[in-house]
Amino acid sequence: MKAELIAVGTEILTGQIVNTNAQFLSEKFAEIGIDVFFHTAVGDNTRRLLSVLDIACKRSDLVVLCGGLGPTEDDLTKQTLAMFLGKELVFDQAALDKLDRFFASRKGRVRTPNNERQAQLVAGSTALHNPAGLAVGGLIEQGGVTYVVLPGPPSELKAMFTESLQPLLLHSNQKLYSRVLRFFGVGESQLVTILADLIENQTDPTLAPYAKIGEVTLRLSTKAEDEESANKKLDRLEREILAREHLARCLYGYGEDNSLSKVVARKLEAIGTSFAIVENMTAGLLQADLTLGLQECQLFKGGQVVSDMEISAEKAEELAHFICKDVGADLGLALLGRVKSESQVDNTMASYLIAFCLNGRVSITEVEVGGYTAQHMRQIACLHALDGMRNILLNHENLL
Amino acid sequence: MKAELIAVGTEILTGQIVNTNAQFLSEKFAEIGIDVFFHTAVGDNTRRLLSVLDIACKRSDLVVLCGGLGPTEDDLTKQTLAMFLGKELVFDQAALDKLDRFFASRKGRVRTPNNERQAQLVAGSTALHNPAGLAVGGLIEQGGVTYVVLPGPPSELKAMFTESLQPLLLHSNQKLYSRVLRFFGVGESQLVTILADLIENQTDPTLAPYAKIGEVTLRLSTKAEDEESANKKLDRLEREILAREHLARCLYGYGEDNSLSKVVARKLEAIGTSFAIVENMTAGLLQADLTLGLQECQLFKGGQVVSDMEISAEKAEELAHFICKDVGADLGLALLGRVKSESQVDNTMASYLIAFCLNGRVSITEVEVGGYTAQHMRQIACLHALDGMRNILLNHENLL
Repeated sequence: MKAELIAVGTEILTGQIVNTNAQFLSEKFAEIGIDVFFHTAVGDNTRRLLSVLDIACKRSDLVVLCGGLGPTEDDLTKQTLAMFLGKELVFDQAALDKLDRFFASRKGRVRTPNNERQAQLVAGSTALHNPAGLAVGGLIEQGGVTYVVLPGPPSELKAMFTESLQPLLLHSNQKLYSRVLRFFGVGESQLVTILADLIENQTDPTLAPYAKIGEVTLRLSTKAEDEESANKKLDRLEREILAREHLARCLYGYGEDNSLSKVVARKLEAIGTSFAIVENMTAGLLQADLTLGLQECQLFKGGQVVSDMEISAEKAEELAHFICKDVGADLGLALLGRVKSESQVDNTMASYLIAFCLNGRVSITEVEVGGYTAQHMRQIACLHALDGMRNILLNHENLL
Repeated sequence: MKAELIAVGTEILTGQIVNTNAQFLSEKFAEIGIDVFFHTAVGDNTRRLLSVLDIACKRSDLVVLCGGLGPTEDDLTKQTLAMFLGKELVFDQAALDKLDRFFASRKGRVRTPNNERQAQLVAGSTALHNPAGLAVGGLIEQGGVTYVVLPGPPSELKAMFTESLQPLLLHSNQKLYSRVLRFFGVGESQLVTILADLIENQTDPTLAPYAKIGEVTLRLSTKAEDEESANKKLDRLEREILAREHLARCLYGYGEDNSLSKVVARKLEAIGTSFAIVENMTAGLLQADLTLGLQECQLFKGGQVVSDMEISAEKAEELAHFICKDVGADLGLALLGRVKSESQVDNTMASYLIAFCLNGRVSITEVEVGGYTAQHMRQIACLHALDGMRNILLNHENLL
């Protein structure tokens, strides 16, 4: 199936917003095996949108229009598609009911006739429910081409895609199941090399790596009739991946909305370990990052940022030990760095000492960190400290 | 002039990268008065790129191709444009010389014949110098249409646009001069209301507001023959803007690559004021943010993150005073917050006390902060503390 995406909105053409919807939909279509061959963005202009539709219907089987479903006069996507297909606009009763409920619950808001435009559909369309907004989407086939209309705000587009459109695009009895594995301690190119044969010969499940700052994620996706048979396939592939080299050790968690700091925060909460932190070069970033993921704030006993200090392993161990005792925490962490080389051309390099004191027992590691910017380098140093913390907590848990 | 942008790269169509180049160029073209009517993205495929060029040349005067100038086989933008225009590819001597210098200085790297593709141009093109990479860009006119070829990596595209393409697109004797004003303490919609008449009737200079988290920037742009006459026009508009309501007080700095933390860091360095910080809810974020902009690290005497504490104005003042004395700093700052309401539906609200102790004199303010996420709220709280610091340093400087 050949698909193309058409974003409608003058704010894209003036550079006020980035067309992130195109990326989201491209990634999702790739996962379910639909090839996207063109992205187009066009302004809120009937004549130019008609010309774009005319081009699209000749080269694609699936034409997805995003944006221009709102209540104002310059929202004209459905109106233009109806004109292009020679159809009327009709009201979707469920969307009208939703409008009624919305305005009934918000006494201050005035309902103008314009608002009802959001409940309109091209006649003959299958309505696509909008879980995050008022504008209804639609899907209609004509002349061998399927046209889809989605709202522009990313939160609405994502919700409508996931809940309404994706199930229609997949085989009727199949759904897409995904699992995201998150790794620290292996680079993207290294991961791709280790998994080269799996990536090259992938059919079902598929796997796709993505690089982030200091970490890599790997998305496994499969089409299946139910969760149980999907999980069987995903489990088998995951086992095969984790059996390779040091990948099992690098896997720190699962899921899209996750991070090393959240995993460590959850682990601290699960064991009930209170903690305290001393930093120098990262200047509070580690404390800020780790506490953001914390539900039980009282586990964080406090921290210090020190400066202007000679760094040594003894000093780091001493500080980790001291901060524990000072604030009465189970676990003390000292993250102390010094710049090794500063260069405009190559990366800046720094060496970090990471000392832990858990219930009086002290341990220390040293890592070298390079980054393109000072902020980048700080973030990676924090990830090393968090990964060290994760390992210490895992060992501690096993001893409990 | 009707322009359109064509991004070439399969990685865009699979959702691996977001087409941010389209946003950058759209914004820049809008500034110099060129209307962009279409964005297209197409994969690394000769046939489909030819079809896109065929559409573009019929509807646009300026066709800008981005990406596909690299050394590998799937980089085919220049090759395809040459085919489309019925031209040969020729070598640009300056780009070849640059390749020579690059490989001479990197002994480990092997120079393959493929690398020389980056120095090629469509015959008859004006070369566009690449200040940030090896691939040369080009500009060529044929049949009333101007075709431009730019590299895909954003750092290269931005540098080439600014240094090579923009001067060619402006009138030969005119250049574009911009000035960015940065405000804290006024929202975007409020700023737009205060400046409504200026924004509505803008011709030259133009002005464009952009909202960021907790702050707003305003870009003034003018076309002029030299910097002096540009500055006269920009000065006049800036004076008119700053005379309105409280905008003069909200202006904290200038420039694209700037922030409140950088301005405060520079001010601390200019006066030579050492400082120390105590935080609770922001958990180190203020220290991390402020020290990142600091050139002279020894001015930061250290900080603390405290938790589990009853917050009061007396406590905040005491801590600001205590941290100064404890680490021997000129200026002590305590940023202490407590959550006022947590709600899934509306914003979370917090109240922050900001206490300063400068050379023994203590002062305090209280602000209410709301945000959509905890991280967002922390960032805004830090901006309030930084703005307070800026004002205290300005007063202090006036007394010196």
